[in-house]
Amino acid sequence: MLPTAVLDEARRDLVSLPGVGISPLEISHRSDWFDRVIGEAEADLRALLAIPDGYRVLFTQGGATMQFSMLALNVPRSTNRPGAYVVTGAWGAKAYAEAARLGPTVVRWDGRDDGYIRVPDGGGLTGDGTDAYLHITANETIQGVEWPSGGEPDAPALICDTSSDFLSRPIQVGRYGLLYAGAQKNAGPAGVTVAIVREDILAQAPDGLPLMLDYRTYADHGSLYNTPPVFAIYVLSLVTRRLREEVGGLAEQATRNRAKAELLYDLIDGSEGFYRGHAVTGSRSLMNVTWRLPTEDLEGRFLDAAAAEGLVELRGHRSVGGIRASIYNAMPLEGVQALAAFMRGFADRNG
Amino acid sequence: MLPTAVLDEARRDLVSLPGVGISPLEISHRSDWFDRVIGEAEADLRALLAIPDGYRVLFTQGGATMQFSMLALNVPRSTNRPGAYVVTGAWGAKAYAEAARLGPTVVRWDGRDDGYIRVPDGGGLTGDGTDAYLHITANETIQGVEWPSGGEPDAPALICDTSSDFLSRPIQVGRYGLLYAGAQKNAGPAGVTVAIVREDILAQAPDGLPLMLDYRTYADHGSLYNTPPVFAIYVLSLVTRRLREEVGGLAEQATRNRAKAELLYDLIDGSEGFYRGHAVTGSRSLMNVTWRLPTEDLEGRFLDAAAAEGLVELRGHRSVGGIRASIYNAMPLEGVQALAAFMRGFADRNG
Repeated sequence: MLPTAVLDEARRDLVSLPGVGISPLEISHRSDWFDRVIGEAEADLRALLAIPDGYRVLFTQGGATMQFSMLALNVPRSTNRPGAYVVTGAWGAKAYAEAARLGPTVVRWDGRDDGYIRVPDGGGLTGDGTDAYLHITANETIQGVEWPSGGEPDAPALICDTSSDFLSRPIQVGRYGLLYAGAQKNAGPAGVTVAIVREDILAQAPDGLPLMLDYRTYADHGSLYNTPPVFAIYVLSLVTRRLREEVGGLAEQATRNRAKAELLYDLIDGSEGFYRGHAVTGSRSLMNVTWRLPTEDLEGRFLDAAAAEGLVELRGHRSVGGIRASIYNAMPLEGVQALAAFMRGFADRNG
Repeated sequence: MLPTAVLDEARRDLVSLPGVGISPLEISHRSDWFDRVIGEAEADLRALLAIPDGYRVLFTQGGATMQFSMLALNVPRSTNRPGAYVVTGAWGAKAYAEAARLGPTVVRWDGRDDGYIRVPDGGGLTGDGTDAYLHITANETIQGVEWPSGGEPDAPALICDTSSDFLSRPIQVGRYGLLYAGAQKNAGPAGVTVAIVREDILAQAPDGLPLMLDYRTYADHGSLYNTPPVFAIYVLSLVTRRLREEVGGLAEQATRNRAKAELLYDLIDGSEGFYRGHAVTGSRSLMNVTWRLPTEDLEGRFLDAAAAEGLVELRGHRSVGGIRASIYNAMPLEGVQALAAFMRGFADRNG
């Protein structure tokens, strides 16, 4: 979802940018206009996330899936120095599987046996300290499991897939070697992927990588080595500007997101077991709230009755079943309140 | 450039798709709507290009630059079976350089010593027949050199970068093992790249490639292995629909493009040497018309005087200088007529 104000502005200027006279769908990535747009997008990200010196902000393509390969190829690994993974859900498992195809890899923690209901303690995950990197997934969209703010492990090269909660809350960027995010949850449309890379990670990339899989290709050319996804970066810049100027920053955005999520989690916890939250307290996602009902039959009736009231997109991922409410930045509190009211009524009628 | 009708339709529906109620900037790639869009885009491409059976149409990201790597990794090469390149300008040189970084590669023809003014004869380019593939660039945007329709060489695995003339004219797809095109010249916005791959090329791809650099990842999942650039594919589908329904196909589009280009080339040839075309007859681009004036000083005055009449974007690429008129599909005949009128007047005043 994107904020209505962003959609309205994009629509207003879609045929012709004011003062430029060209559509953002056709303007050159070498134009002064796009220079400003990509510059503002980076400056906004640096301000919103308080990115320290020594980090580069890169705009890539291919989504998180491309990053799964790219990070695994850019950070040198060996059998004695594998890429290490903490797997807290389906996305972490994919990230691990791709890295394992491409080189020495190890799993330091895997929540699969529990059904991916929690993140581990941050301690004790770094092995003997010789891992090439430690990879975590900030938020698992399918299971609804998210690292609590500040709860992530310490590691010399901590790498994080933050695709599904990027720009939903502050990040302590200085704790990471590399953060990456497909934009399409909170930051913009599908088609642009942000990578925030510490310079020592950049410096150790091996030679001989395919050009577009080498972070240095982006870092050395301001993400303009070849034609970037101009329109997607433009929409992202509208989102980041709005976060700065209208929302007032990521702390405020996180407050709003917590209020929305707590509405649902409090209702679940107070339902006397009618609704059963999937993730345990302390690992619950503020973006994707997941729960079950007493039977699959009741879950089906819940989804049907919700749809009849205009509450859609609530079916859990087919791999896990149940119910999932995705409440990204652009979901207004009123939408969550409407869902909560429906849930209370449904529990009263069926509990 | 995109057709005005396409920009208008995209603008009309940007906030909310009729009958769907969601913006194309936020709708899921798993939605019924996007299923239809990507299906129609593929069906339109198959109809417009008369793509034979045995070819897959893939929607990728990363532009032609990503394809430079991807094709070089997907077609197995060895010292006795190198990837072979015909270099007719700056883009072909880049394609070759990237493949050479990644494996055994050979140049079968290079127009550099002439300053890239022509394509070679189609014959005699396939070496002893053991090359892994033969790569050509359909149109060189910087030099204005384009293979004439049907003039391309025969090779068992002919690969073509058709980024800058894709959908400008018919292509005999059956002569190719692989065609690829960044969309942003004629087919759509930056951010989506089309690859048309013969199935025997797909079948020989080695194991162990990064997922998003393996054509099979796209072929096996209908280009939906991960989140594709939804909005860019949607705009592309508006362009292909318009080409089918309003223009009436690529033969008609090519007729229009030839008429535009001939207006300029005839004027250049009739200018008694005041304007000197860069490419030789038979290799002249219908997309990018390039020429010089008697002195660089006159070229500067030409550009200034043109800009004063609203004729912009005419400066030749900095690597070659001179003048370049890019007249892609969406450039109307009237725009080229205005340029021609200006050129006649400028020659009269300064010739």
